[in-house]
Amino acid sequence: MAQPVIALYTDFGLHDPYVGQMHAAIQDRAPGTAVVDLHHYAPVFAPAPAGLLLEALVPFLPRHAVVAAVVDPGVGTERGSLALWSRGHWFVGPDNGLLSPLLDEPGAAAYRLAGDGSSHLSASFHGRDLFAPAACELARGDRMVLGDPVAEPVRLRLERGQVIYADHYGNLITGLPVPAEGGDLRIGDRVLPYVRTFGEAPPGEAFWYRNSLGLAEVAVREASALDLLGVAAGTPVTWSPDGEG
Amino acid sequence: MAQPVIALYTDFGLHDPYVGQMHAAIQDRAPGTAVVDLHHYAPVFAPAPAGLLLEALVPFLPRHAVVAAVVDPGVGTERGSLALWSRGHWFVGPDNGLLSPLLDEPGAAAYRLAGDGSSHLSASFHGRDLFAPAACELARGDRMVLGDPVAEPVRLRLERGQVIYADHYGNLITGLPVPAEGGDLRIGDRVLPYVRTFGEAPPGEAFWYRNSLGLAEVAVREASALDLLGVAAGTPVTWSPDGEG
Amino acid sequence: MAQPVIALYTDFGLHDPYVGQMHAAIQDRAPGTAVVDLHHYAPVFAPAPAGLLLEALVPFLPRHAVVAAVVDPGVGTERGSLALWSRGHWFVGPDNGLLSPLLDEPGAAAYRLAGDGSSHLSASFHGRDLFAPAACELARGDRMVLGDPVAEPVRLRLERGQVIYADHYGNLITGLPVPAEGGDLRIGDRVLPYVRTFGEAPPGEAFWYRNSLGLAEVAVREASALDLLGVAAGTPVTWSPDGEG
Repeated sequence: MAQPVIALYTDFGLHDPYVGQMHAAIQDRAPGTAVVDLHHYAPVFAPAPAGLLLEALVPFLPRHAVVAAVVDPGVGTERGSLALWSRGHWFVGPDNGLLSPLLDEPGAAAYRLAGDGSSHLSASFHGRDLFAPAACELARGDRMVLGDPVAEPVRLRLERGQVIYADHYGNLITGLPVPAEGGDLRIGDRVLPYVRTFGEAPPGEAFWYRNSLGLAEVAVREASALDLLGVAAGTPVTWSPDGEG
Repeated sequence: MAQPVIALYTDFGLHDPYVGQMHAAIQDRAPGTAVVDLHHYAPVFAPAPAGLLLEALVPFLPRHAVVAAVVDPGVGTERGSLALWSRGHWFVGPDNGLLSPLLDEPGAAAYRLAGDGSSHLSASFHGRDLFAPAACELARGDRMVLGDPVAEPVRLRLERGQVIYADHYGNLITGLPVPAEGGDLRIGDRVLPYVRTFGEAPPGEAFWYRNSLGLAEVAVREASALDLLGVAAGTPVTWSPDGEG
Repeated sequence: MAQPVIALYTDFGLHDPYVGQMHAAIQDRAPGTAVVDLHHYAPVFAPAPAGLLLEALVPFLPRHAVVAAVVDPGVGTERGSLALWSRGHWFVGPDNGLLSPLLDEPGAAAYRLAGDGSSHLSASFHGRDLFAPAACELARGDRMVLGDPVAEPVRLRLERGQVIYADHYGNLITGLPVPAEGGDLRIGDRVLPYVRTFGEAPPGEAFWYRNSLGLAEVAVREASALDLLGVAAGTPVTWSPDGEG
């Protein structure tokens, strides 16, 4: 059997002992499991853009990796839980729309997590108490954690044409997959030129390029597009092929 | 034999190449060891509150995990070292009071680390040169690193009724284990109401809840209690059951 | 065969999903590989000081570890790639001078990475698409990734007598290996006294010490030398033995 790999995707950040406790919960149940900290600065308390960014990362997951995805402003309320099979991976997380972009894939199947209403869960840390343990069981091939099928998981409206994430360089990642190189990108009321790589961009001017996730991304060479353009997450973005912009 | 797991608890932060060198030291001695970065933003240079937070994390450690705990303002001075057996785990770290909350457990036993005065140690990085290697040896069951028993390890006064840590949301974690749900929490000169989960709290108002470590924690829904209340680490906290507050 | 270990050294930071994708690429190809995050805040876009800091970390790498070193402002341009054997390790990274300090070691050998011009590479993330996979193959002993020898890898002028890194305490790490304890350190227009450990330093005054990497480092006890001295990376530094300063 292949060595199981678990990937973590959260908005917990790395400053506090929350991600560490998820790792501890995994190593307690399945010592030696390889754990990938895929991202811990997902859009905070924002399942919709966080789900779009997760979707874009799926092609780069280790084969068969089980993903614990936790962006969960409603932890401790009545929201349900999900174990979702989609695109060759199990995803576990809250049933709050975070996994919306992955629900309609061919062969996708959604289940409630058994035990999601247990009184043994803390009210505030299902990442440690529910999702990390469930990921361990799915990683070892144990499906006892699967509860009833969920016919209507929560769905959020997916608005791909927007800024979904600003990275620490100030680059603005959009949710917009671009089918080809070239063309113009409109962000707010500006139209930006395309460049293939940073090295081709004139310093100090905003441009867009197709990033390593296949998404349109806005950047400024050796500077912050976030600061230069002053746009926020959620700013609308549209793409048009050359000559149509 | 179970796969050994080592957990790291430090105040080194993640910006610098210090935690990475501890990992490197472990993988050099015991390639493939699973290492949990439990927390690297423990209260800086503050062994007393750092020890209380570590104590609260112990129930969530992987079984049999060996903990290297390094909050060590006196590194390079004459302070001693400890290997402490307590609550089913080995802890290694400086003998500066950091491990005070774990000294008086049933069956606890404290030893000096052999080699803690070696001239091969750097004067400033015992985490890499002494504690990580000792953790490796204890994780594999080798007790050659244990030196003389330490009859009187350094003890710090444990003041649980205080704010010990502010997380990156601005939530204020206290050192106060609360025996039951409900009741009032006094922090400085305010009395805060109890809520079970964030979802039940009115926006903009400070409340307290029993956090996932079992400690009283002060928070504001979708805002920073640290900013709203303007309290610092060390602010006194008391809890009283309903009707007595 | 020993368990392979891969060490990552980048300037990507930990806020974004870049390091996580390198881990994912490694666990996809070689599930269970131990990965050491040696440092992810190397001097940004600055291969010369980043190379000096990496050189100082080499003695603390796990034996046989393969290092993926990515400080790569020119990603996507015509710059080449390197696999360098030096000091008992394989290093993979851009051929931009980052590995300059390691080129002239006895027995060192440099090769191009096969596939570095593949159209399957993203233009902006060779860390994930080229260097992490190459590190996996070298870690398992597969040398098919080695392309032609590189007779003249890019070399940067190595200026060791300068500040190369400020850590999060505000300590100023220089690139200057000091052969012995003691002596004076000149930084900019100041001459600083030597102390062996922080505990011996007078509070509030800048001093220098030989850090755990063997480099001269400037610090202030319980304060930030960066703030107190107001010096930037690149500030010249010279050392002289006692009595000559």
